[in-house]
Amino acid sequence: MPMILAANANAQGSHVGEWRHPDAWDKPAANIANAVRLAQIAEAGKMDLLFLADGNGVRNLDKPDLFAATSPSDRPGVFEPVTLLSALAMVTRHIGLVATTTTTYDEPFHVARRFASLDHISGGRAGWNLVTTSNPGDALNFSREEHVARPTRYERANEFAEVVKGLWDSWADDAFPQDKASGRFLHPDKVHALNHKGPHFQVAGPLNAPRPPQGHPVGFSAGQSETGKDLAARHSDCVFAIEGSLPAAQTLYADIKGRLAKYGRAPDDLKILSGVTIFVGETAQEAEDLAGALDDLVPVAVGVDYLSKMMGQDMKRYPLDEPMPDFDGRYAGPTGIGQAILNVALEQGLTVRQTSRRILPQMAGNMFKGDPIQVADVMEQWYRGQGCDGFMVAAPVVPTGLERFTRLVIPELQRRGLFRTEYEGRTLRENLGLKRPPDRFSR
Amino acid sequence: MPMILAANANAQGSHVGEWRHPDAWDKPAANIANAVRLAQIAEAGKMDLLFLADGNGVRNLDKPDLFAATSPSDRPGVFEPVTLLSALAMVTRHIGLVATTTTTYDEPFHVARRFASLDHISGGRAGWNLVTTSNPGDALNFSREEHVARPTRYERANEFAEVVKGLWDSWADDAFPQDKASGRFLHPDKVHALNHKGPHFQVAGPLNAPRPPQGHPVGFSAGQSETGKDLAARHSDCVFAIEGSLPAAQTLYADIKGRLAKYGRAPDDLKILSGVTIFVGETAQEAEDLAGALDDLVPVAVGVDYLSKMMGQDMKRYPLDEPMPDFDGRYAGPTGIGQAILNVALEQGLTVRQTSRRILPQMAGNMFKGDPIQVADVMEQWYRGQGCDGFMVAAPVVPTGLERFTRLVIPELQRRGLFRTEYEGRTLRENLGLKRPPDRFSR
Ligand SMILES: Cc1cc2nc3c(=O)[nH]c(=O)nc-3n(C[C@H](O)[C@H](O)[C@H](O)COP(=O)(O)O)c2cc1C
Ligand SMILES: Cc1cc2nc3c(=O)[nH]c(=O)nc-3n(C[C@H](O)[C@H](O)[C@H](O)COP(=O)(O)O)c2cc1C
Repeated sequence: MPMILAANANAQGSHVGEWRHPDAWDKPAANIANAVRLAQIAEAGKMDLLFLADGNGVRNLDKPDLFAATSPSDRPGVFEPVTLLSALAMVTRHIGLVATTTTTYDEPFHVARRFASLDHISGGRAGWNLVTTSNPGDALNFSREEHVARPTRYERANEFAEVVKGLWDSWADDAFPQDKASGRFLHPDKVHALNHKGPHFQVAGPLNAPRPPQGHPVGFSAGQSETGKDLAARHSDCVFAIEGSLPAAQTLYADIKGRLAKYGRAPDDLKILSGVTIFVGETAQEAEDLAGALDDLVPVAVGVDYLSKMMGQDMKRYPLDEPMPDFDGRYAGPTGIGQAILNVALEQGLTVRQTSRRILPQMAGNMFKGDPIQVADVMEQWYRGQGCDGFMVAAPVVPTGLERFTRLVIPELQRRGLFRTEYEGRTLRENLGLKRPPDRFSR
Repeated sequence: MPMILAANANAQGSHVGEWRHPDAWDKPAANIANAVRLAQIAEAGKMDLLFLADGNGVRNLDKPDLFAATSPSDRPGVFEPVTLLSALAMVTRHIGLVATTTTTYDEPFHVARRFASLDHISGGRAGWNLVTTSNPGDALNFSREEHVARPTRYERANEFAEVVKGLWDSWADDAFPQDKASGRFLHPDKVHALNHKGPHFQVAGPLNAPRPPQGHPVGFSAGQSETGKDLAARHSDCVFAIEGSLPAAQTLYADIKGRLAKYGRAPDDLKILSGVTIFVGETAQEAEDLAGALDDLVPVAVGVDYLSKMMGQDMKRYPLDEPMPDFDGRYAGPTGIGQAILNVALEQGLTVRQTSRRILPQMAGNMFKGDPIQVADVMEQWYRGQGCDGFMVAAPVVPTGLERFTRLVIPELQRRGLFRTEYEGRTLRENLGLKRPPDRFSR
């Protein structure tokens, strides 16, 4: 099985200062031409899939300088991801298309339908990244006073995933003969109404779409809590994880893979992709220079504001040049990303300033930096060392960073036999080496 | 102002027997290649827009022979319309893209976001057809025991439309300078959080998308009840209406246009499109032959089953060759379409068999039939006679019927100066002759 390489396809790079860099897109907000170009770069590099993070709200209205610099899921000028990926399906032929959608503020019928549509439109390249919504403020856009409590979110998410899969299985793969001569449009005995009645949802079904080409579009998730890992083991085909070091990644890898047996699944039925920002240059110095140039584009005040946001606390209260506080081990920030940032800062003994300057800009997404050989070496080490099955690659500057990655690093990975030179399959599932779930009529 | 011509773009023709015709698509269920071809035919004909009806459920699980023959909004093998139109945006350049979405079982934040995305992706060609859901059974897919009651549906729809427009107005048109040199991504004083608190929705905003290119994507609606007409006068840019005769269309036209002043709008601020199935041949005989051939593809039993469904009653209880019952004037079928069918049948004194055979196959959508001159004559008469501002054209057979319409009728309309020979504007709004709503910062 080759290494999996996913492209983080949000319009802006993962570095807070990125958008101001001369090599970055001009006008990244809701720009379809940019999105097309990015998709084509990733596909030319034979990457497995485009991944879009998402959220349903704008954070930091009180900190406008941060707008450009927030994580992809709470930026103000973004596309709704399924709509965008459906457009990108028409200008690509092979690459997978994975969109994030919340289970907390949407309906399983709608989600099942949209991803079934995307799978039909793209000829079997759709993926669904299930999140429970990390920004509590999104609740205020859905007639709620506050975010749904976390245990309820996960209960709901599990039931939601169950219903979505049940809806995708509404029809047998061969339910629609559409035979003009006999007048048989469909086989009435090849439909299964779901009639789901659970604590959170009642959904009769069937779905008004034929079974998706992949059976089920590929399921992603990204939580790293106990409940998050259990949800992944039960429902996901892929996990997007962020760890700051190989040992930590290995522990998480073993942990998640170890949970699969409980749900009757084999370790290889779930793939783990590690999030990483890749700074690559023709030489190591070139990569260093790019990182420095980007860091210089983030004013200290913006960096600290942003750190405050990620940590869920006002970091201006802490001296800039003292080590990051450990919050007496009682840290409970808003997202897994804040925890990851803190872990790296504590491990490496960074100050507040250093954290905001060195870790934060790429959101602790485990930066690899160097020339093509150095970057390929560390990727190989993580991959062979069971730190991950592949990587969710974020470019520090979009699109040039992704273009460089495909031009400099991918050929080196191919030379080592670690990455494909041609797409193996027709669908995303096939390219990822995942089995197609049989329909319920042939189980 | 030229006549407006919209293409009913659901994958199957409006005639119940259509899919079996040799000229109809093979395999129409969720077939993207067909959808692309259809869009390109309509655009080559300079038509204004593609229109997709929609629903969230499958009706008639007990009558499988009807599956192929149900109205576009409750067929089992369809695409989710926004997903489809986003794909079609990439293979067209001028034509408008109008998708139906329910206000009863969706959230205003999601709907505002998806249509803003579609508008950005298509460069200002998106339209939203607001419906309150005609199929009561859809409720069972959204954790409800029964359909939301009609008055509540309309109250909710009005508030929903208000919120969606408010969200589209979250940002000034020039809120995102994205200026690399100064570091100014956006103007913090050009954002307006909605903070809507109403009986049905509480939505804080702002939307996480820049203002759509059209300001507001073009708003459609289709109800013909008092509440439906009031909603249109208050919120819609276009109405999709179905009337079986010119006098009836003129009455409805005057009625809806007359309601606009109440909301501070001019008669020309709202366009009325009349739904019509067009059977055109090189000769009138060719058109007749096509109609006959299609009618022959509908077995009598299927026709009566289908009529039962549209009327919301078991029509097998009535003698086949007696006139349609008038239900003692106490008819209350499920949709405006049932009422329209009944009106035509009563006006023309049709029997149950005739209704199921002659009216039903094109769903009373006011059939025009003949050679190109005859069809253009009646279109001109309706248009000049203030029966409508244009037509929602359904082809009896897809795609050949639409191809014939663009090849035979459109050139005749152009010769008469009734229809454009080139797209006038860049956006759908411009092509329809509708003003762009200014943002709330320049009002
Ligand atoms: C790598 C990664 C990517 C994530 N992407 C998103 C996202 O796009 N949208 C979102 O709402 N939450 C996102 N999250 C948040 C998770 O869905 C989850 O809510 C959060 O990590 C808390 O997880 P836990 O509840 O398992 O601790 C992401 C989390 C991680 C670790
Ligand atoms: C021409 C026309 C097209 C319609 N298209 C749809 C549709 O695509 N989806 C849907 O749920 N309802 C559709 N409807 C139903 C209307 O939204 C509305 O529910 C119905 O006409 C009842 O309207 P009223 O409540 O104003 O009487 C359509 C109605 C008409 C007249």
